[in-house]
Amino acid sequence: MIHTLQVTSEKFTYDVVTGRGAWGALRRFPLATYSSVFVLSEKPLWKRWGSTFLRESGLEPARPPAGILTRTVLVPSGEGSKAMRMVELVAGQLLKGGADRRSLLIVFGGGVIGDLGGFVASTYMRSIDYVQIPTTVVGQVDSAVGGKTAVNVGAMKNLVGTVYPPRLVAAEPRVLSSLSDRAFRSGLYEVVKHAILAGDPLFSQLEKSIDSLRPPNTRLLEPLLASAVAVKVDVVNRDEREANLRRVLNLGHTFGHAFEEATGYDRFLHGEAVGWGLLAAARLAEGLRLLAPGEGERIARLVRRVGPLPPIGDVPPAKVLKLLPQDKKAVGGNIRWVLPERIGKVRIVADVPMKEVAAALKAVTSDQ
Amino acid sequence: MIHTLQVTSEKFTYDVVTGRGAWGALRRFPLATYSSVFVLSEKPLWKRWGSTFLRESGLEPARPPAGILTRTVLVPSGEGSKAMRMVELVAGQLLKGGADRRSLLIVFGGGVIGDLGGFVASTYMRSIDYVQIPTTVVGQVDSAVGGKTAVNVGAMKNLVGTVYPPRLVAAEPRVLSSLSDRAFRSGLYEVVKHAILAGDPLFSQLEKSIDSLRPPNTRLLEPLLASAVAVKVDVVNRDEREANLRRVLNLGHTFGHAFEEATGYDRFLHGEAVGWGLLAAARLAEGLRLLAPGEGERIARLVRRVGPLPPIGDVPPAKVLKLLPQDKKAVGGNIRWVLPERIGKVRIVADVPMKEVAAALKAVTSDQ
Repeated sequence: MIHTLQVTSEKFTYDVVTGRGAWGALRRFPLATYSSVFVLSEKPLWKRWGSTFLRESGLEPARPPAGILTRTVLVPSGEGSKAMRMVELVAGQLLKGGADRRSLLIVFGGGVIGDLGGFVASTYMRSIDYVQIPTTVVGQVDSAVGGKTAVNVGAMKNLVGTVYPPRLVAAEPRVLSSLSDRAFRSGLYEVVKHAILAGDPLFSQLEKSIDSLRPPNTRLLEPLLASAVAVKVDVVNRDEREANLRRVLNLGHTFGHAFEEATGYDRFLHGEAVGWGLLAAARLAEGLRLLAPGEGERIARLVRRVGPLPPIGDVPPAKVLKLLPQDKKAVGGNIRWVLPERIGKVRIVADVPMKEVAAALKAVTSDQ
Repeated sequence: MIHTLQVTSEKFTYDVVTGRGAWGALRRFPLATYSSVFVLSEKPLWKRWGSTFLRESGLEPARPPAGILTRTVLVPSGEGSKAMRMVELVAGQLLKGGADRRSLLIVFGGGVIGDLGGFVASTYMRSIDYVQIPTTVVGQVDSAVGGKTAVNVGAMKNLVGTVYPPRLVAAEPRVLSSLSDRAFRSGLYEVVKHAILAGDPLFSQLEKSIDSLRPPNTRLLEPLLASAVAVKVDVVNRDEREANLRRVLNLGHTFGHAFEEATGYDRFLHGEAVGWGLLAAARLAEGLRLLAPGEGERIARLVRRVGPLPPIGDVPPAKVLKLLPQDKKAVGGNIRWVLPERIGKVRIVADVPMKEVAAALKAVTSDQ
């Protein structure tokens, strides 16, 4: 079953298509208005899914309108590709392949490819149109929607980026079947995040099915993906620039980013760090008496049931605390925390005493 | 005498202030709404003008609102700084200095600093506000207005960039007095370009005074600067995204960029390449019978009077021709030429036969 949601960005409206057959949405996309079509992807992923994608999207060599050829630009897998030198490299390849201002870039991959490709699209020749084809759980329910793009600078994740919406998002759940168990579960933490924001029925549906959600069977997950991406679409529609409302999507991410950075980005997958971040945010909310302990317990239980998280007990809390104020959401060094008030409602809280933050951190890192 | 023009961009309106005392415009700028203020500049320039600027703008340590300190980030002079690795470096320095999303970046310099700084501002933490303080002729009459930002990738100038308007442009002509004679004249070619677009009275005023326009005396130039920037402001107000009208500003630049690239960016200053580009565009327009020979002659005479241009006779026309179709304004390889119809009017022309282009190029490169 295919769901189509619409996102209204500042300049245009685009479709977010989810479900089996979503790639077919490109057949109704105005490809003929572009001078050329490029695909950005990563090698193993493209090898596994490229021909299926080209066939189902109607992009295979025989099909596109006259004069339009699809060329691929492949970058190595992994976070290392989310870097300025890769922007340079991809831009150079696009130029070499003849991409001009009327070319279309199809960004086929997970969070790294999505962020990198979106950034390239937003800056190549001062912007070209692009399409997001997310191939991970977090890409499909979150990062491919809304147009946030970024690359890392040194140890600072997402320091440089843009807000530049795609012309289409097409999320095909079958592609998730080839994810590793760990990568799949990592994305589920983001689904849990959306469920905390949305509340029931999504939260209780997740509680029912969480133990059975594993690749390669993606059937059970499919209806949940559509509900989870709807959370993101709803927030983005109300506030594209994150001036206020969009901030709620950072639930679990302030701690999460610090956990990733404190461990040199080589212990946690992003979603796993968010998993720990959700546990810490729930604890912090409890400590501040924003959240009833029963609700905090229900959140923690769901997070734990996603699967085993890499250990965090040896990460020095002082190191994590020191990394917090550099979070991008901080203004003037004062972090704006996104904290749950109950399942289905969060609040933005400034001026949280560092003592409370440290206590929540300690409770979570020592309780594993 | 201070002139203030207003540019209405998609999201807000900003002032373009020109004339002696223009830096004082920062005293009326809402600095107190920012968490911190950073200046990006280049070393020798900042050494010469930094303290004057800080004093006249009211930014010197004693003056800013409580809690706001001005920090400087200095990069080496020259085109080499317009690179991705410099974006990375400046972003890293901003982070280290504590810049957050509510920080302001003051971009103090010529075209390189302006393009680099604008790009950093448009992408640092997904955009922060910035102010342009142009310190070259071309910066003051052209590049600081309109929000086009860019960095080079490999040999390709401006391949990656954004359109991101500043919050204020303040152009103080006294700063031009310390330019080298060559750099000053290089900027005058852009003033000539604006005069071709605007026609009289600017064009004939330039004809009258061109031989006397030399640093360090900037008095004669001042009224012309205000008229020349008005051309840019007018075009930008009518078409921010260059979808159509803004293209006219590329008069002389299609050839100009190819001349720069063909000579490895080490023979011509940008304005000098534009000077040659204006001569070639006029010839091309004559060849296509768009432009009366008398008008072409008047344009050529004014360009020649700006001063001696570095030689171009040894640049192989075939090399230049090969570099043309990669121009960013090309769509599907078909260049859209901006050509003068008369002084005061240009036309966008597609489908110009390469034979005509080659003939114009040959006429200009062999006639020096």
